[in-house]
Amino acid sequence: MTEKVDILVIGAGPAGIVSAVTARKYYADKQILVMKSIENGVIPCGIPYMFVSLKDPDENKLGNDALKKNNIDVVVDEAVKIKRDEKIVETKNNKKYYYEKLILAIGSLPVVPPIPGIDKQGVYPIFKDMNYLNDSIERIKKTKNIVILGGGFIGIEFADEISKIKGLNVYLVEMLPHLLENSFDPEFSQMVEEKLKTKGVTVLTNTRIEELLGNEKIEKIRLSNGKELPADSVILGVASAPNTQLATEAGLDLGKGKGIWVDEYMRTVDPDIFAVGDCAGKRDFYTRRDVAVMLASTATAEARIAGANLYKLKVIRENKGTIAIYSTYLDGLVLGSAGLTENSAKKEGFEIVTGIFNGVDKHPATLPGASKIKIKLIFSKQSRILLGGQVSGGISCGEMINLIGIAIQKGMLSVELETLQMATHPCLTSAPTVYPIVLAAQNAFNKA
Amino acid sequence: MTEKVDILVIGAGPAGIVSAVTARKYYADKQILVMKSIENGVIPCGIPYMFVSLKDPDENKLGNDALKKNNIDVVVDEAVKIKRDEKIVETKNNKKYYYEKLILAIGSLPVVPPIPGIDKQGVYPIFKDMNYLNDSIERIKKTKNIVILGGGFIGIEFADEISKIKGLNVYLVEMLPHLLENSFDPEFSQMVEEKLKTKGVTVLTNTRIEELLGNEKIEKIRLSNGKELPADSVILGVASAPNTQLATEAGLDLGKGKGIWVDEYMRTVDPDIFAVGDCAGKRDFYTRRDVAVMLASTATAEARIAGANLYKLKVIRENKGTIAIYSTYLDGLVLGSAGLTENSAKKEGFEIVTGIFNGVDKHPATLPGASKIKIKLIFSKQSRILLGGQVSGGISCGEMINLIGIAIQKGMLSVELETLQMATHPCLTSAPTVYPIVLAAQNAFNKA
Repeated sequence: MTEKVDILVIGAGPAGIVSAVTARKYYADKQILVMKSIENGVIPCGIPYMFVSLKDPDENKLGNDALKKNNIDVVVDEAVKIKRDEKIVETKNNKKYYYEKLILAIGSLPVVPPIPGIDKQGVYPIFKDMNYLNDSIERIKKTKNIVILGGGFIGIEFADEISKIKGLNVYLVEMLPHLLENSFDPEFSQMVEEKLKTKGVTVLTNTRIEELLGNEKIEKIRLSNGKELPADSVILGVASAPNTQLATEAGLDLGKGKGIWVDEYMRTVDPDIFAVGDCAGKRDFYTRRDVAVMLASTATAEARIAGANLYKLKVIRENKGTIAIYSTYLDGLVLGSAGLTENSAKKEGFEIVTGIFNGVDKHPATLPGASKIKIKLIFSKQSRILLGGQVSGGISCGEMINLIGIAIQKGMLSVELETLQMATHPCLTSAPTVYPIVLAAQNAFNKA
Repeated sequence: MTEKVDILVIGAGPAGIVSAVTARKYYADKQILVMKSIENGVIPCGIPYMFVSLKDPDENKLGNDALKKNNIDVVVDEAVKIKRDEKIVETKNNKKYYYEKLILAIGSLPVVPPIPGIDKQGVYPIFKDMNYLNDSIERIKKTKNIVILGGGFIGIEFADEISKIKGLNVYLVEMLPHLLENSFDPEFSQMVEEKLKTKGVTVLTNTRIEELLGNEKIEKIRLSNGKELPADSVILGVASAPNTQLATEAGLDLGKGKGIWVDEYMRTVDPDIFAVGDCAGKRDFYTRRDVAVMLASTATAEARIAGANLYKLKVIRENKGTIAIYSTYLDGLVLGSAGLTENSAKKEGFEIVTGIFNGVDKHPATLPGASKIKIKLIFSKQSRILLGGQVSGGISCGEMINLIGIAIQKGMLSVELETLQMATHPCLTSAPTVYPIVLAAQNAFNKA
């Protein structure tokens, strides 16, 4: 028998949950069902902190509370086929669901690089599955030599977290010249490299893994420089790929970035099927080229657009294209990046000017707990529009990068930032005389 | 003999310093002189923290380092007359300075309310003079019963700071129904009132001081409710008035807000004389009516506009009118306000809708050090433009209020905030699924 639902959401990660909850706000009378393939999901960005920082890894569970509170039904099952002509989804448990509107929030899958020996025991891709992660973490903790492959956000946060466990040797291997190479310019990446080194992590940049050695179980790895590292566990933090099989089998188009093609309102080529989050294609904010940005925050922004616009276009998207905007935290050091870096802007062909300012996050700087702040803004040289920014410092940088993010999304000019009105307080911010974003903007076109 | 200077800045508070430093950036060849009437000034917003938080009150000194580093001359003297026809400033030390461009950054003076007995010993207005403040603080610390008059930012921060000293009785007296009445709606003011009460401060709202009693020295005060309070020290945190005597004597106009009248580029009616900071008039961001906003951050924003535009209009002011934007910190509780409150918007005649969201500043919320966040956004009902916002929570709110401030200054719509792309991180922000500014915007027009 076919069950009829108004809105069917496949996937219960951040994108799925936010799509459903937003749809509830805008379409109070519709029946909404969320289908999840895994009983216990996790908060994706909390995964590294399941090792030590969270007393109980189950605190990182992504449960159904928000859904239930909003009168949204949940079923644990896996969609295996979309019959678009009948508007029916078939599942692993042999159920059929007829939908009015379908939202695909089916996420991404960790990329397992084709390195010889990668299939040995002791190699852990990061699947967003609570039971799998709990089991993996217990195994990893019992080993001695841990190699993390990939120096992006996932890799550095795992390295930082695992370094808190005494007696383990942690190696972080990255093939590019610097950690976080795609999100930060070298002067910021170096702070991360130094921080991890002080925490006892062996950081190997410009280095590839050639082969994983051992019998059934991994024992050591051979590097591109010919050296070998002992390795009992290898964590894969390399990349993820959009999960699109269900969509392509249903004849939905993909974009050039390999995600499911969607328009400005997250509609696929089928007007009754939406795609959001990691599985969906994204267009770059600056060039509208297809890009691969996979972040929970991006996913939720898309989910809000989809959820509000399922039946009618209600929430007009003023916010064009996707920017990369992240923050990370390493044992007291906060880094944030929004939009283009100096390097990425140049590669894309922009003619740029940068403005840098070094300050302190309290005033006077001698107040207890003050941290140094470094900020770098990247402007278009001719049009003077803000293209990107990077910050490092203390806790306040977590929201300061969002300030830069809003300025980018509003296409703000250097003069607007230079004359910005802001709140300052001795215990909370830099002094008003030297507020970092303002001074960096001023310095960009008036080198200090 | 008359000394000739290109740019003469009178005043060396935040507005004076930033005017001079900015002028140096834009006019490298000009000779700049800053005249200060007091040898040792102070960082204004740091004054409360000179009691306890700063190991040495001298850490709060506003020195000449920034000026000297930028090749700006400094003289300790007091301007007593501006002869506009000759472009000459005469000083207390009988010097004469010829200027090409003159910047008045002469600040404000604390208002001493006309209460009987206000002239007794033991009553302390807040003058921004290091020697005076150091002396006053030493005296106040030796007393037992301290009454703070005025429940605005200055008053509450003094109350919080002094409550850290054991054995003193601290009373905070405010004539309005709530503390911070002009900057926050009651649900936020109440948090401040509760916080101060837990710190042992006696908070008396809806209360006036009728008379200060004692012989030469203050001994007690009589309140509007007929009760009496013991009082050895009374700190005046009531209000400040623009310091305009020098300007009016020179025939410069004042605005309706009692500050020196200035145009969009901080030019007085005399095109060679600029006024910035507390002494200068301000036009409201929403109505362009004259308003009295006296904040160091506002002063520095004006100073940057003046400094860059002394000889040519270089930095076009995109940022129209003044918003009130502040933050404060009370023993772990952070509050921020930007733009209009619900009450002030209604009084001004705006038709509004508010959106509220209660969240946590980390995710999962069980991570160590997580604080609750409350956010309230005020929108125009018809045009859906953001008019104001208030936040309470932990350290991250210090910059979160600046995010709201940028959104106000850019006239952002609810849909723009609802679809905002932001960075989130477990240790730094709320979860992306429930990012507070986004959810408050969504809730405004879709009541949860």
